[in-house]
Parts: sequence; C-alpha cells; structure tokens
Amino acid sequence: MKKVVIIGGGVAAKAFAIASLQINKDYEYTMIRNNERSPIPCGIPYSIGTLKDSTDNLSPDKEMIDEGLKLLIDDVNVINRANKTVETKNNGSFPYDKLVIATGSNPVVPPFPGKELSGIYTIEKDLDKIVSLKKEVESANSIVIVGGGFIGVELADEISKFKDKKITLVELAPHCLSVAFEPNYSTEIENILRNKGVDIRTGISVQGFKGDKKVSSVEVSTGESLDADLVFLVIGASPNSAIAQACGLECDERKAVKVDAQQRTSDPDIMAIGDCASKVDLYTNGTSNIRLASIAAKEGRNAAYHLNNGKEILNPVGITNLFSTAVSGKYFGATGMTKQQAQNSGYSVIEIGVNEFNRHPGKLPGAAKYESKFFFSKDDLLLLGAQISGNEQVAEMVNVIGIAIQNKAYAKDLYAYNYGSHPMGTTSPNKYIIHQAALKALAANN
Amino acid sequence: MKKVVIIGGGVAAKAFAIASLQINKDYEYTMIRNNERSPIPCGIPYSIGTLKDSTDNLSPDKEMIDEGLKLLIDDVNVINRANKTVETKNNGSFPYDKLVIATGSNPVVPPFPGKELSGIYTIEKDLDKIVSLKKEVESANSIVIVGGGFIGVELADEISKFKDKKITLVELAPHCLSVAFEPNYSTEIENILRNKGVDIRTGISVQGFKGDKKVSSVEVSTGESLDADLVFLVIGASPNSAIAQACGLECDERKAVKVDAQQRTSDPDIMAIGDCASKVDLYTNGTSNIRLASIAAKEGRNAAYHLNNGKEILNPVGITNLFSTAVSGKYFGATGMTKQQAQNSGYSVIEIGVNEFNRHPGKLPGAAKYESKFFFSKDDLLLLGAQISGNEQVAEMVNVIGIAIQNKAYAKDLYAYNYGSHPMGTTSPNKYIIHQAALKALAANN
Repeated sequence: MKKVVIIGGGVAAKAFAIASLQINKDYEYTMIRNNERSPIPCGIPYSIGTLKDSTDNLSPDKEMIDEGLKLLIDDVNVINRANKTVETKNNGSFPYDKLVIATGSNPVVPPFPGKELSGIYTIEKDLDKIVSLKKEVESANSIVIVGGGFIGVELADEISKFKDKKITLVELAPHCLSVAFEPNYSTEIENILRNKGVDIRTGISVQGFKGDKKVSSVEVSTGESLDADLVFLVIGASPNSAIAQACGLECDERKAVKVDAQQRTSDPDIMAIGDCASKVDLYTNGTSNIRLASIAAKEGRNAAYHLNNGKEILNPVGITNLFSTAVSGKYFGATGMTKQQAQNSGYSVIEIGVNEFNRHPGKLPGAAKYESKFFFSKDDLLLLGAQISGNEQVAEMVNVIGIAIQNKAYAKDLYAYNYGSHPMGTTSPNKYIIHQAALKALAANN
Repeated sequence: MKKVVIIGGGVAAKAFAIASLQINKDYEYTMIRNNERSPIPCGIPYSIGTLKDSTDNLSPDKEMIDEGLKLLIDDVNVINRANKTVETKNNGSFPYDKLVIATGSNPVVPPFPGKELSGIYTIEKDLDKIVSLKKEVESANSIVIVGGGFIGVELADEISKFKDKKITLVELAPHCLSVAFEPNYSTEIENILRNKGVDIRTGISVQGFKGDKKVSSVEVSTGESLDADLVFLVIGASPNSAIAQACGLECDERKAVKVDAQQRTSDPDIMAIGDCASKVDLYTNGTSNIRLASIAAKEGRNAAYHLNNGKEILNPVGITNLFSTAVSGKYFGATGMTKQQAQNSGYSVIEIGVNEFNRHPGKLPGAAKYESKFFFSKDDLLLLGAQISGNEQVAEMVNVIGIAIQNKAYAKDLYAYNYGSHPMGTTSPNKYIIHQAALKALAANN
C-alpha cells in the first residue's frame, strides 16, 4: 500500500487526515507530531479563562485513529527527498510515497533585551504547556500582554475574568485588531476591555524587559516601566519551514513553503499546508500573509482532494480574511479587505454603513443590532470587504458575506440573492443588511 | 415626470418601492393599498403571543414616504391598459407609465360546511384585524388551528403561552411542515408543541364546523367533534390575481400572473411581484408554488432593477425553499428540496446527516448541537437541499447553505469554500457541518 507521511498535527494536518482517510483509501497514513496532546488552537484563550479545565480544549485524535491513521509522537529531523524518507529523532526512518508538510508557524519573538527572563511566554500549541500557563495566570498579579491581535485581545478578555489582576495590553499600532477591523470596531472592542479593567496602551512599543531571573517589568517607548510578573508575547507568527528549507524546497520571501493551487511544493511528491505554506490573495493574486485555522483547514482539505493528481483545481484558489471574534459576549466579524487594504491595493472604495436589528420587528426578544460596513470597488461595485458586529449570529452572518466574496460577488449579485428570513432569527426581508448595502452601492453608482 | 403606480402594500410592494425610490429617481411613485396599517406578515404569530402590543408588529411606511412615495389607502377596481390608468374606488383615476401589481394572495378557504359561522378566522395582513384577533385569543377557551404549516405551527407555539387554553392543531398530512422538513424535524417540532400542551392531530381532515351563529366545534374525519370557540384556518394561500385577470394579463395554471425573469407580465408596462406573480423553480425550471416573504422581497428588488429595460438579467432566476422557524426557542431551517421533492423531480439522492456543536470545543458556554441533513444528486453531487436544527444561529446558517444552493454548488464547491470560525461562535474549522457533508458526499461517490 502506498504511504503518506504527515509532518505536524495541527489544524491543517488534521483536516488533511480527516478528509484523505475518507477519499483516498488506497494509502496508509502516518502522522508525526511532537506533542502528545494538541489543543484546539483558537480555543487556547478560552481554555485559560472560560473553561474550568484547560484539557476541555483538547483537539481529538480518535476519529482519525479509528479510520486507520498511525499517530507517532516524535520530531522529524530530516526529509530525505532522494530516498523519499523522513528521519525521526527517536523512531528511525519512514518511507513515503507522498509527504505532507504541516509544520505550522512559530511565534515571533523580537530581540527585546531581557526576553530570556522567566515569566515571559509565547502561546505554544501544546496542551500540557497551556495547562501550566493557566496556573501561571492564576498566581500572577500583574500581567502584560504584548500584541493587540486576536489572541492578545481574547487573552485580555479571558484573563479579566480572574479577580485582582492588573492587566495591561500593549499594541504598537494606533488600534487593536487594526489588520482586521475599521477603527470604530477596534475602539468599541478596546472600550469593552477597558470597562473590564484592562489597561489598553496603543501606539506604544516595547523596549525590553527587566527583572531578576523572573520578569518584573516591561519597558515601553513612553519611558514607563509597566509592572509585570507574567508577560504574554503574542505579536504574530512566522512560517515554520526550517525542515522544508533544509531539504531544498522553494520558499517565498516570508519563508513560507511555496505551493501551487493543489498544495504541491516544488517537489511534486511533497505537499505543504497550513501556516507553513505560501498563500495567494483572492483579490491581488499576490502573496497573502493571512494565517488562520480556517485557512489551514481549507488547505488540508485541498491537499487531500489533490493527493492523486489529475483533478481539476478547486475554486476559489486565493484566500482572504474571514473571521470573527467575541469580546465579553459581543461578536465582531470581518471578511475581505479593510478599507485601507483595499485602497492600498489600488481600489477606489465606496464605503457603506448599515445598522439593523437581527429580529423583525425589532421589539422581539433577542433583538440586537447588526452594525455593518461594506466596501465596494467604485468602478464596478465588486464587493471588497465587510465588517459586522452584533450578537452570536455574527459568526455565521460573516460567512454568508464571506461566501459572496469568495464567489467574487458584485453589488447586483448580492442584491439578487434570496436570503431566508424569520422574525425570531433574522432582519426583515426588506431590510436584510446585505441587500441594503447592495442597494446603496447600486444607488451610489446610478 | 414619469409615473409608477404600485397596487398593494405588502412585502413585495415595499421592497420594490424602497429599492426603486433609490435607483430610479426619474419616476414619481404612488402606492395604493387597502389597509391603513400593515403588519409585518411573518411577525403576525408573534404579535398575538410574544409581543405585548400587536401594534409593535407594524411594518413602517416612513422611509418610503420620506423618499417621496405617495401612499393612498384605497381599492383599485380596474386596470385600464388602453389608457394606462388605474381606477380607484374612492379617489378616481391614476395614470401610469409603469404599473406594478403586488396584490398578494388570499387565504384558501375550502367549502367546509359551517365556514360562515363567527369565530372562524383566516390570517389577514391587516394590523387592525390582528389587534382584534389577539383579543379573541385572550377570551377563547378552546382554539383549533386548521393547518400545520409555518403559520399554524407558530400560532400554536405562541398561543400556548396563554394560560388555560385548550389548543388543537389539525393537519391533513402525516406530519406538520412536511413541505419543508424531513419527518424527524417535523416530529421534533410536534413533540415540542405537545410538551407545551398542544394537541397535535395529524393525518386527519376537517369535515365542517358546527355552532349556533358562533362556532362551537370542528368536525373531523375520525368522527370526533373537537371543541372550538375560536378557529384559525391557515391551510395555504392562492395568488390574488383577480384584477390582473380582469384586464387580460396572462396567468398560469395556479392563476398567478405570468412574469418573465424581469418581473414583466404579458403587458411590457406592467410588472407583477410577490405572492400574486408566477415563479420558476431553481432546479426544474417548472412552476414553483413557494410563497414566502423573502421571495416577495427578492421579486420587488428585481422589478426595481428592471424598471428601465435593457439591463442584464439578475441571477439566479429561479427560486427554491429557504426559510427558518423557531418553536419554543429551538430553531429549524430548510433550503432547497426535501428528499421526497428531489426524488419526485427525478434525482437519485444521497442523504447525509451531520451533527456537530456550534462551539469549539463543545464545552464552551452557548454550545448547542446542529443537527443537519444534506441531500446531493448521486450522479454529480449537486447540492439539492439541506435542513438543520439548533440555536438561533440556524437562521443565518441556513443562509450560508442557501447561497451555495443558489450558486448551484456541487460537493466539491462546498468542500473548497472557506468558512470563518471562532470558538465562541462556530463549529471547529475541521468539523464545519457543510464541509463534513461535502466530504461525506465525495467519499460516497469515490
């Protein structure tokens, strides 16, 4: 039987395995990863706060193993392309017919003075480390989170549930989450966190850390020294492609392993998926820097589909933002480009705002307002991006819009779609926010 | 200035007016409808129960009037196509350049013996009548609802909130909502209502009504006589096309006004939209009998888009089921065909069931299970329909699937799409129900 070896065990690796075990039954699968228990990556902030027991955030292996996957906990040291084998640290050599590299990303750690002090952590996707991190949070007094992206914001929200912690979030940009959201949404999120006692410090940079073996303060660009007996460094991630580079696979300028639309690397028997793989932007066809679990899963499925050559390419090929977050029970979603990103890509942008209840009439119980912004290309009314806040339904509403974006929808397409409506679950059929946005776009270009 | 006259004031009429006022500013608009205050149609059940005041379910006119719409409360007696005028009962004649017929539908009332007794009501889209109907419910002891479609089921759910009412729901088919849902969902809905004290009687027919001026019982096919001092007849609606027929416009076999893909009737200066207009099925291109507010709104928008000729047709042209309902806080959504409908249309059907939490991990607060069924064409894995139950997010989740259906998605398309995920708002990226269904379909045909 032909052999597939998968290096890595994160979202991309599992997506590949779950799919390929079902649709490519003529292979034998071995997954080699370096942690015994892997957490659900996006659930990590919640496994520190909301979830009583961090181990409730375990990503299960059972289904894959039941389907025949061999799971090996080990490190892969070398890929030997000439022999088509991988060499592990403790278990010798494994031959492959097809190799899937899903080595993920590494947290970015700038060369801050004092970064080697204890009490300074990145978020690693290892359940046992997360369990111990929760204990660190419980015993800490002053916690500084460096980085106001999704993980930083969600960590701040979760840690604010503990009593008597001094929490400071430091972000270099003028706003948290500015890669994803317009300033109005970012400001709202910041204010929610401030109301929960988090000190949000945007527009300042970290200069270094001080302490005696253990961190005691974070030095920032204002000259202040922020008390800290626990620091989270969550300022991004970079592709973990060392093993791919070492065996000569082509990488892009960000050191992501170059892949084609079928996830094949420069070696046709090796695929790369997830954070370690290069990505193409849906709009520009240029390199995309987005690293998301949902994208990793998409690439895992894509690789499974194309494990045997000869199938037509799955569309859409490129990727774009598509995500949501929740801060203290309020939900925020974004898909496509922000206004700034669209302008930077050369688009002349029409911005349209629509606020509407998610019930009709709006006096029904459960009513909450969607506050949305849509961006269209002025020339042809191509939908470029959308952002939305509201109740938990935002998490799927942003998918409704996201599919339209992946279909390269224009205002007239959004306007023509039928969306189901119900008083207790949606905006009125005459006021659906996507229709309102499309109508306003058509009217603007009339 | 050119004149548009709109006959009717329901969802289709308003959708047309809201859109056309913005994108066709070179017309003057007059809406002629026969009720002073119009309710939100789908909100009617909730204006009898959940909403304290039925007038909270008012469909607003203000926005249209602010944009310049002239609203006239009157009846239109005649359309005079030769002169291009409409003749009203009380306000004389109105000339038009373009006429939009949006006369809706009439509740079906079979020739049951005793149907003229007082205390027997259909649901009319007139706010003042709804206000008085709520008072009837308050004073009634035994209420029989004839018809287990959406309105019947939602009425039963709402009326069950009143104390000390005997409520019976009579449905001819073996299950409630069988046009929309597979038997397992219908059974679940029936059981929810039974647990709230509603006596669900399926598979029996009404033979007639008895009483002395006022109804006192409903006679059914089992020979039983069901106590009733209030009866709701909610067994469907038929197109209200009398005025269109009278002026010689072509109608289809169900007496719906025939329209093309631009909503134009057999007279190019007259459009028809909403329940009174003919519809084409997305899959079969044959006549569709679906009558929904969201479809009416789609047709209103479509007519506005095509008010001036010469634009390319908006896609998709045909319609299909796309709706949700809520019964005692549990949500149910359906889109496309049921299994039976697909088989009746000649498809060989693959049925796939997927149950998954709407949070990841499933131990997070707010977690509820999606229970879904997907139907694919066995030959080519075209998505034919899907049904889903769960929390309020179902109301948008069914739209995520509905857009795919309107795009004529195959399993491989569903499999390729990226859907945004978040622990507090969606299923895990490796377990998204649409992906699971697509994967199982691909595996089944592998």
